[in-house]
Parts: sequence; C-alpha cells; structure tokens
Amino acid sequence: MTTPTTDAGTAVRRRPGRPRDEDIDGLIVAATLAIIDAGEEVTVSRVVARSGVSRAALYRRWPSLTLLIAAALDVGREVPPAYPEDADLREVLLTGLGLGADGVAPSAPGYSEERFRQRIRLVMSDRALQKTYWDSHVSRRRVPLQNALRVGIARGELRSDLDVEACFDAIAGVAYYQLVVRGDRISDPAVVSRLRAAIEVIWRGTVS
Amino acid sequence: MTTPTTDAGTAVRRRPGRPRDEDIDGLIVAATLAIIDAGEEVTVSRVVARSGVSRAALYRRWPSLTLLIAAALDVGREVPPAYPEDADLREVLLTGLGLGADGVAPSAPGYSEERFRQRIRLVMSDRALQKTYWDSHVSRRRVPLQNALRVGIARGELRSDLDVEACFDAIAGVAYYQLVVRGDRISDPAVVSRLRAAIEVIWRGTVS
Repeated sequence: MTTPTTDAGTAVRRRPGRPRDEDIDGLIVAATLAIIDAGEEVTVSRVVARSGVSRAALYRRWPSLTLLIAAALDVGREVPPAYPEDADLREVLLTGLGLGADGVAPSAPGYSEERFRQRIRLVMSDRALQKTYWDSHVSRRRVPLQNALRVGIARGELRSDLDVEACFDAIAGVAYYQLVVRGDRISDPAVVSRLRAAIEVIWRGTVS
Repeated sequence: MTTPTTDAGTAVRRRPGRPRDEDIDGLIVAATLAIIDAGEEVTVSRVVARSGVSRAALYRRWPSLTLLIAAALDVGREVPPAYPEDADLREVLLTGLGLGADGVAPSAPGYSEERFRQRIRLVMSDRALQKTYWDSHVSRRRVPLQNALRVGIARGELRSDLDVEACFDAIAGVAYYQLVVRGDRISDPAVVSRLRAAIEVIWRGTVS
C-alpha cells in the first residue's frame, strides 16, 4: 500500500504547471487520509496539525469537513473511461465491475482493502457523509457502465424494459456482499468464481 | 425501537421453564447490546458493570468476547422457517429475502436500521468478528432459501447449473447495496421498486 502522501502527490504531479493552490489542496487531502488510515476521527484541528496548512486556508477551501472526508476517501479512485459502442457487454459485466472498476477489487493502486473497510465504517456512522460520497463519487463512477447497458438496450441485445440502475446495483451488490457480509477477499479465487457465477445469472436475466 | 433489555427479555420469555442460567445469559447479552447501541466499545469491564453479572460468570459462559458480540448483534433475528416444497420461487425471491428475511429490511421487530449500521461498523473494524458472525448467524439464515432454490433445480424449474450460493449473494447483495452504498432506507418505495427490478433480473437469469 502506498502512503497517503504519495497518493496525493501522484494526483498533483499528473497536472502540468502544478499551481500552488493544488499543492495546498493535496496537503490537506493527504493529511485527512492519513488521519482516516490511522483510524482517528477527522477534526479540523487534526487536519491543520498534520497538513501544516492554516485553519483559515482550510476553511476557505473546504467549508465542509464532510466534503473533505469524501474527497479523501476517493483518493486513488477514478471514473472509468467510456466503453466503446461495440463492447462485448457480457465481458464488460464480468470484468468491468464486480471484479474491477466498481472499486471493491484491489486493482486500483493506492486503494487498499483496508481503506475500503475504513470507508464503509465511516459512512455507516455518518449518513450525511454517505450521501455526499454517493453523490460526489460513487454515482459518477457508475455512469460509463450504465451507458454501455443503455447502448445494449438500444441495439436490441438487452431487454427493452431493463432497469439499468437496478442491474448495476445487483452486480456491484454481489461484490460488496463478499467484503461486507462474508468478510472475504476479492483476490481469493473461490470468491472470483462466485462473483462470476452471480454475474452470469444477472447477465442471463438482462438479455432479450 | 424496543430497548435492548426488552429484546433479550422476549427471547428468554419465549422458552418455557426459564432456567436461571438463561436469565444470566439474557442479562449478559442485553448489557452487551446496550453497550453496542450506545456506540461504545464492548469490554469485559463494561459488560460486567452493566449486567451485574460477575466477571467469573461472564468468562464461564462466554470465553470469547467475539462470540458474545456476535450473539448480541443477532438479538431480534431468527432463522426463517423452511419453505413448502411447492412454494412459488419467484415470490419467495421477491418477498423472502431482499425485502424481508435476510435481515436488512426493518421487518424484524427489535432489529432497527440503526442496529444494522452498528453491526456493519463493528464487523468492518474486526474481521474475526465478521467471520464469526457469518459462521454462527448469517450463513444459517441463508439455509431455508438456498434449500428452496435446490428444490427448484430438482424439479427442473431452475437451471441445472445454477450456483445457489452465488444466486443468494446477488439478491442479498442488492439489498445491502441500498443501505451500505446508497445510504437509502428499505422502507422507501423507490428503493423497494429498485430491489424488485433487480430481483426480477436475477429471477430471469435463474429459470431454465
């Protein structure tokens, strides 16, 4: 697992020019993530102490601690790119979601299972954070796959009455179930088999 | 929401005779649940203080705090009864799991959504507890529905190659997703519609 500082540093380095404001944002987010990773409660004082950024600068950039925590929880995660129009939808479902891009799999560098578990703990103790994180991050990562399913409906491959949101929930849900309820690891081959079997059932239920 | 004491009291009262040992067990479990509901860490000292049971009696009955916490988390939950051989499997899936018996729905008296959220927080911070709770409680509640699916396979209604465990994970997973990821409530009609739509997709994928 890379350190939070490295994560945020990578995000900043990706942008050319490296304006000073983004450096400060990077410091704040990295400090917040370090506090989360340490299992401590995120408070303004702790973020100030750990980041070296002034309290005034922190409030100017992040008027809400909830938004800051949501951003920190999403470090190392990205919205996947759009799928090509002619993508094999069954393959997309089998490889693109439960086993990768929905973020529960250990494929994203810098996004460890331990951080996933911390994220679930935090959102389960704070529904405002949960809703913010859903709106600002999770729901956006769903868009490319949901669009691919809509293309499948338009070309007649998938049932015309398919509920795309519900279908996504079913596939992502089976992956979350492994981690949240069974306490299994997605890297376990038996878990991968089970996920594939479940996605096959869902896939059969979507085709027209 | 009923109080923890009432929950445990109900469980004890259900048994005839009411032997003294079960009273003590009821006191210990109720105290543990009250500590969990208060958002405090469960320790031997706290359970002793709140239950009035001696430390020696506590250790004699619960050599492991993990097992005690798992039992407390399950107060108000029951293993559902077996389904009749001729049950309508589509109805069973639509009503018996995601919207009821898997325990994420608010149908079980004494098992509130707040307690569900506490349970997820606890298991996400303690994998040993998560595995214990899975083995001793969750996996047992799955048996009746999984057996009903096996009957469906045997009578040729469901695909012969259906992976019953994976199918259960998909249906339960979609319900967990609403609560753990979306932060929605199962009592919300829009959520019920989405769950039903997802279960319909899974149902279509299971039939032969």
